[in-house]
Amino acid sequence: MKNTFGNAFSVTLFGESHGTQIGAVIDCPPAGIKIDFEYIQDRLSRRKSDSDISTERREPDNYKIISGLFNGYTTGTPLTILIDNSDTFSDHYDQNKDYFRPSHADYVSEIKYHGYQDYRGGGHFSGRITAPLTAVGAIAEQILSLKDIKIGTHISYLGGIKDKLFDNYSADIDYLKTLSFPVLDKNILTEYKNIIKTVKSESDSIGGILETAVIGISAGLGEPWYDTAESMLSHILFSVPGIKGIEFGAGFSFADLKGSTANDEISVSDGKIITLTNNNGGINGGITNGMPILFRCSVKPTPSINKIQRTINKNTLNNSEIRIDGRHDPCFVHRAATVVDSVTSICILDMLMSKNGAEWFIN
Amino acid sequence: MKNTFGNAFSVTLFGESHGTQIGAVIDCPPAGIKIDFEYIQDRLSRRKSDSDISTERREPDNYKIISGLFNGYTTGTPLTILIDNSDTFSDHYDQNKDYFRPSHADYVSEIKYHGYQDYRGGGHFSGRITAPLTAVGAIAEQILSLKDIKIGTHISYLGGIKDKLFDNYSADIDYLKTLSFPVLDKNILTEYKNIIKTVKSESDSIGGILETAVIGISAGLGEPWYDTAESMLSHILFSVPGIKGIEFGAGFSFADLKGSTANDEISVSDGKIITLTNNNGGINGGITNGMPILFRCSVKPTPSINKIQRTINKNTLNNSEIRIDGRHDPCFVHRAATVVDSVTSICILDMLMSKNGAEWFIN
Amino acid sequence: MKNTFGNAFSVTLFGESHGTQIGAVIDCPPAGIKIDFEYIQDRLSRRKSDSDISTERREPDNYKIISGLFNGYTTGTPLTILIDNSDTFSDHYDQNKDYFRPSHADYVSEIKYHGYQDYRGGGHFSGRITAPLTAVGAIAEQILSLKDIKIGTHISYLGGIKDKLFDNYSADIDYLKTLSFPVLDKNILTEYKNIIKTVKSESDSIGGILETAVIGISAGLGEPWYDTAESMLSHILFSVPGIKGIEFGAGFSFADLKGSTANDEISVSDGKIITLTNNNGGINGGITNGMPILFRCSVKPTPSINKIQRTINKNTLNNSEIRIDGRHDPCFVHRAATVVDSVTSICILDMLMSKNGAEWFIN
Amino acid sequence: MKNTFGNAFSVTLFGESHGTQIGAVIDCPPAGIKIDFEYIQDRLSRRKSDSDISTERREPDNYKIISGLFNGYTTGTPLTILIDNSDTFSDHYDQNKDYFRPSHADYVSEIKYHGYQDYRGGGHFSGRITAPLTAVGAIAEQILSLKDIKIGTHISYLGGIKDKLFDNYSADIDYLKTLSFPVLDKNILTEYKNIIKTVKSESDSIGGILETAVIGISAGLGEPWYDTAESMLSHILFSVPGIKGIEFGAGFSFADLKGSTANDEISVSDGKIITLTNNNGGINGGITNGMPILFRCSVKPTPSINKIQRTINKNTLNNSEIRIDGRHDPCFVHRAATVVDSVTSICILDMLMSKNGAEWFIN
Repeated sequence: MKNTFGNAFSVTLFGESHGTQIGAVIDCPPAGIKIDFEYIQDRLSRRKSDSDISTERREPDNYKIISGLFNGYTTGTPLTILIDNSDTFSDHYDQNKDYFRPSHADYVSEIKYHGYQDYRGGGHFSGRITAPLTAVGAIAEQILSLKDIKIGTHISYLGGIKDKLFDNYSADIDYLKTLSFPVLDKNILTEYKNIIKTVKSESDSIGGILETAVIGISAGLGEPWYDTAESMLSHILFSVPGIKGIEFGAGFSFADLKGSTANDEISVSDGKIITLTNNNGGINGGITNGMPILFRCSVKPTPSINKIQRTINKNTLNNSEIRIDGRHDPCFVHRAATVVDSVTSICILDMLMSKNGAEWFIN
Repeated sequence: MKNTFGNAFSVTLFGESHGTQIGAVIDCPPAGIKIDFEYIQDRLSRRKSDSDISTERREPDNYKIISGLFNGYTTGTPLTILIDNSDTFSDHYDQNKDYFRPSHADYVSEIKYHGYQDYRGGGHFSGRITAPLTAVGAIAEQILSLKDIKIGTHISYLGGIKDKLFDNYSADIDYLKTLSFPVLDKNILTEYKNIIKTVKSESDSIGGILETAVIGISAGLGEPWYDTAESMLSHILFSVPGIKGIEFGAGFSFADLKGSTANDEISVSDGKIITLTNNNGGINGGITNGMPILFRCSVKPTPSINKIQRTINKNTLNNSEIRIDGRHDPCFVHRAATVVDSVTSICILDMLMSKNGAEWFIN
Repeated sequence: MKNTFGNAFSVTLFGESHGTQIGAVIDCPPAGIKIDFEYIQDRLSRRKSDSDISTERREPDNYKIISGLFNGYTTGTPLTILIDNSDTFSDHYDQNKDYFRPSHADYVSEIKYHGYQDYRGGGHFSGRITAPLTAVGAIAEQILSLKDIKIGTHISYLGGIKDKLFDNYSADIDYLKTLSFPVLDKNILTEYKNIIKTVKSESDSIGGILETAVIGISAGLGEPWYDTAESMLSHILFSVPGIKGIEFGAGFSFADLKGSTANDEISVSDGKIITLTNNNGGINGGITNGMPILFRCSVKPTPSINKIQRTINKNTLNNSEIRIDGRHDPCFVHRAATVVDSVTSICILDMLMSKNGAEWFIN
Repeated sequence: MKNTFGNAFSVTLFGESHGTQIGAVIDCPPAGIKIDFEYIQDRLSRRKSDSDISTERREPDNYKIISGLFNGYTTGTPLTILIDNSDTFSDHYDQNKDYFRPSHADYVSEIKYHGYQDYRGGGHFSGRITAPLTAVGAIAEQILSLKDIKIGTHISYLGGIKDKLFDNYSADIDYLKTLSFPVLDKNILTEYKNIIKTVKSESDSIGGILETAVIGISAGLGEPWYDTAESMLSHILFSVPGIKGIEFGAGFSFADLKGSTANDEISVSDGKIITLTNNNGGINGGITNGMPILFRCSVKPTPSINKIQRTINKNTLNNSEIRIDGRHDPCFVHRAATVVDSVTSICILDMLMSKNGAEWFIN
């Protein structure tokens, strides 16, 4: 078991919330990829979404690439990204350092690391580590775009309200990339934000559901057993903090469908083999079938809330209470969207490089 | 990408639906495990569930262990299981061999393997390959039981009706192991079977939801990024044919919860650290917290149905129709339960062996 | 750590000397490879080299491919090879079962497997397991030949006498493939055999050195750190029983060379970039440079000798003596040559499939 | 294929000779290891061996640990080491940038990376990358020392002269750790240095042989096939720049031995099972046997020499000549000794953590 993902495009994350620097190493991108530095910065900014509803640190997330890059192109050797932690005041964390925060990793981390973990701000478990993950994802997206593969995520459900479905995939994905709060239906965006503001005013938090589409993948990607397309994607998606459920295509709705409705009939249209529905979310028998890959992720409410909760003192092991002050978002569903795009890109790129070799992308 | 799962307890499946033999190799179980051969046979029988509602082949699934076993104990070297394919009449399959069956792997397999796949009965994609997977899982369960770890799965939802929840985990799991059609509420069992019989009479099929509990896992298993407990489990679970969704704990319901309700408060009870609810399904920050691990899997309806469906002819690529005769279950949710137990056991055992070494189980 | 080699063409060996069957699983060969069954049989026969100087079991090593093959072509799914153990009389082994044979794996296997290993005939450590390894290598060689890559090995040193060097690589390799006792200089062959016969008459055994050439590999294969071409090759070569040293190109002779002599100067000849010498054995900085890959392996004398040796009784742990009767070769250098060809093929194929994808071989 | 080594203690190197920083990530050391920062610095200094015979850069190799460390102890999460490149003047390299230096990686790197590699100073192939490798090795050595495992390397052969053999392993290793030029026989040290000075005066370079001992390893480490102890060690050793041969125990001398002399007879002495000789270098059947692990590595002469050599112009592909100015050592055998210690430590630690789990070291 590792803190590394991927066989061909392999990514290791490092760093702690209150260390000096956090980062990632990629072993190895294809050689000869021209890096769009602004796109990386853009993705980092969206992950922060320093808007009216997020209360993330104010540091600008400036990143450096310290290896694997020469004259603006990837060299094909390990590429390392560093991001400074400039805005790390530990006051709030020190205040709670003797208590396990409910639904956080404080307790499991104490056990797993025998008390040696950097407890400040969640340490290596901090959502802050998704910043280098986002930067890597932005690089992966650039490489995938060379083969016209696009990935986009929107908030499909929040506070009882559904966003509209993907309609024109390519245009919808392009549109979502322009948003910090990715919703397809413009009318719903204000509703969603109002729900979050209300929740915030109640010192509470709220979860939601994200829906992701991947287009441009040919049929034939994935393995029949173990490394199915769903297996690979869910593996990395479940390392995005707060994701607790994943469904592909009709997903849990299959339990209410009969085969005659659930099956995706096959047809030839304009010389292209398609399915007439896409209940299987672009994947049959673990292998992509050429239709858009579609999945939804459930995101839980922010565990940090400004309410009194029962917990225990980690030194005395006595029952006690905690109220978490400090900056924390009432909702991180919109921010998770950027991270979901990133890990999906990483996974798809790794699968394609494993199947076709790294050079496929530069030929 | 591989047809192999696991780092320490690594399992490769091989074989095709209509080959002479199918099997699995484990590289490597701990040395010195006394094998309970009857338990393996019992699990194989339950996977077949040759009952009134299943129409699986009639072969007895006799298995042989041809390596890695000496005097009834594992040697610690690769252990190989072989199962004969005795009942393979290809008539029905040959009948449809020129058409891609909707929602099956026929089309993706044609593309992935460039037409060289063994198309008969789904070849390597066949649900039949879950037989050796089940045998391996039965061995994994025996090894886990040395550390008092138990895994059980019930049908929690089918045809609009919910089974009752786990109550006494240990007793419930023991009870489920005695059933071919694993349901906790005896009253619901007949209802479920009647629903399936009705669906069968309509030449249709139906899906459902499975719920699994794992007990006996200490806090501290899993990694913060990538190889989280949810990542590892979902990776292998999504290779069980027909599974299209997974949720841990409250899962998709988190989208309707606020933090104040969703969070699992922490308490000390009888000197043991517990959470007062288990919305996180025994996993925080990707690491087990000592509570029961709880997850649900969505199982889709059997794709093979005896109704006319649109598809294409694989040689002419013309639009056409197909009606699938031959033996196929109207529902495989109950059979998938055994396989879910198996892959869960394999995953948990692999994680524990990676963390503690193989010898932990024999000390 | 695993009994599995390879990332893309991954091979697991299983079985014991005195089990019913031994074999191997490949996960996965490219789809669409036409298998030359006779070539596999031919390689298996050469590994046995049932000649005047070898005393190997008399079973014919008939193999079966039970998965991953359809209509004579690989399907691209796991391919499994089985070989029966027909000629397993355990008398000699039982005779020595209470003593650790010097320079065998008896003692380490007792410790590693806590006494649960199948001790008969060396169990999983037996040279017999090189039979399925040879069969896999024969398949790998066939796949490599589609890209005009050839591998050949000769005995370059035995009993103080050197064979001649490779001269015309392609012709020399073709010639070596026709021999059970692979020596380039026909005059030396009889000398070598006489040396072995003399050693045999003394109830002793003898080692030697093998030299291997790989031709047809383009420049650019290997990684700068860790997975260098030398690293990958030595990794698998050191699992051939009895190999205790490996050197590439000038190898240990570099210690007696100065840079001005050791360096391979670079030149263009007929539009092709070559080196004027090949002291680096076709590998610079861990990466192939397009010249023939050249390496030598040291093979130790057969540890089983019919002389009295000091050892201990494994039950009493008292000092004792052993004399090993039964069939054993006075030399297995010539037989190791076939296995070295096999593992080299597996390694090179795995590296090429990792770099270029499996489909490179069928395009 | 990867620029990452290890399954449990996994190390990725990054950086280029003339980048701003180089480094390594470890995924993951055991939690709770107290880091001896001075020992790391000491090892870094010895790797540089800024003495009368080395002309390495003058930067002090100050390192920083930017993740995975808290209050002086490892946290158990990815540990990242950074080293600044302060002394990088590119003049000499620019002078030769249009020519492939003989026996360097210039040509293979041009091919492998399609011309996108950072060619300055060898880029990612530079021996400079062994600095972070040495720092990681120093950490691995500290962890191993908790279990009384020690690793030491001496120059056993240079310029036709042999150093004496290991005698008292533990004391000899302790002694070697105090030397920048590790030789067991004090009388030979001056001879070796004089040989190197003479070679330097001739604008030439020279190679040699290193011998390494590992003590404190119990019997039972390694796998019978593929991941043998020799396989694992040679895998990482062949990524040390300039190593072209490896032999364990008697190694290539086995070719001149008969079984009766070569075999290591077994005995009980003071209740401990030992072999009376150690021709197998502490490894039988790929598994450690409890005796000291002993191996020798051949190191080639520095390829950079200040003499005219034939090569080609990389742009015109015309035959040409090169003379390499700039700082380069006439011999790097003594510096390689530190790196060999490091990679051996990393390998042994990874094997032990894979076998026993990370927590074995802290219990």
